[in-house]
Amino acid sequence: MSKSAQIVEALRHSRHDWLNQLQLIKGYMALERYDRMNDVIEEIIQQAHQDSKISSLNAPVFAERLLTFNWHNHPYQLAYECLLERSDLSDKEAKIVRILNEGFIAFDKSSQIGEDNHLLLVLKDLDHLTFEWDFHGRISSFDEIECFIERVTTKETGVKCKEKQFMENEIFVSLEIGP
Amino acid sequence: MSKSAQIVEALRHSRHDWLNQLQLIKGYMALERYDRMNDVIEEIIQQAHQDSKISSLNAPVFAERLLTFNWHNHPYQLAYECLLERSDLSDKEAKIVRILNEGFIAFDKSSQIGEDNHLLLVLKDLDHLTFEWDFHGRISSFDEIECFIERVTTKETGVKCKEKQFMENEIFVSLEIGP
Repeated sequence: MSKSAQIVEALRHSRHDWLNQLQLIKGYMALERYDRMNDVIEEIIQQAHQDSKISSLNAPVFAERLLTFNWHNHPYQLAYECLLERSDLSDKEAKIVRILNEGFIAFDKSSQIGEDNHLLLVLKDLDHLTFEWDFHGRISSFDEIECFIERVTTKETGVKCKEKQFMENEIFVSLEIGP
Repeated sequence: MSKSAQIVEALRHSRHDWLNQLQLIKGYMALERYDRMNDVIEEIIQQAHQDSKISSLNAPVFAERLLTFNWHNHPYQLAYECLLERSDLSDKEAKIVRILNEGFIAFDKSSQIGEDNHLLLVLKDLDHLTFEWDFHGRISSFDEIECFIERVTTKETGVKCKEKQFMENEIFVSLEIGP
């Protein structure tokens, strides 16, 4: 696909999302549920601020991966929250994109298709840059997630697993990306 | 700029535009002007449908040019309306992009900076594909527009000028792109 076609396609997806949100606002307006309408608007603004933060980390491949993720076919919806103080991830971009891609594939394989599955990715500055993966939904197997953690936490990558919890309908993994 | 950076940048502009629209909706909601709020929502939906039509003509370079135009610095705001029945402009894309680019440059040079200038581009199927350029605002000179029309209406291009009107605060040009 040409560069122009990719931009037109990204704008098409974004317009589609935005029209869906507008329909929701219209719906509440028709019902005169102005309180709910206000909630929806505030949620949209919050999400837009998250998207802006993700876009401002000087890591465009990483940003594109997150911003466009839900436009592709996955057995779960992705949400993300950026709580980082830092404003530049460029020196770590290649590494974190590789970790993201491996993680997404592992969750693709671990979650049951057709269920109401959600993955929340939280970016934090703890001692080091940390990615928390919090999955809620129907899980077919934990093996792929275990393999993913093993594969990315090597001496060479400097990535450490700070916490992992495997429950019936939830997986929580905290990965410290390292200095 | 990398492909990812361009996509992230386009999404940033698009997010910025609709956050502005959302602020307008919020403003009317705060004033309890639900009639105006409804009007704003309907206008946004109309514009989104125009953007969708432009994006569906199998002419991505042309679509990108229009969709992203107002994100660049120009002395006028562009609006467009697509009244075409046809759904494929691919065979004419190179030609119409050249005409668009020449026209935009001519209007860039003809309109006074800092004034409230608007260019409406209407795409029609008359006898042939036709582009109507309707400019309203402060005009510094008609020469550039005359040159533009002369340059693009040659035997080789097959483009014909079906109508032109030069008024104090308005320029109207209708260009038939040819079979």
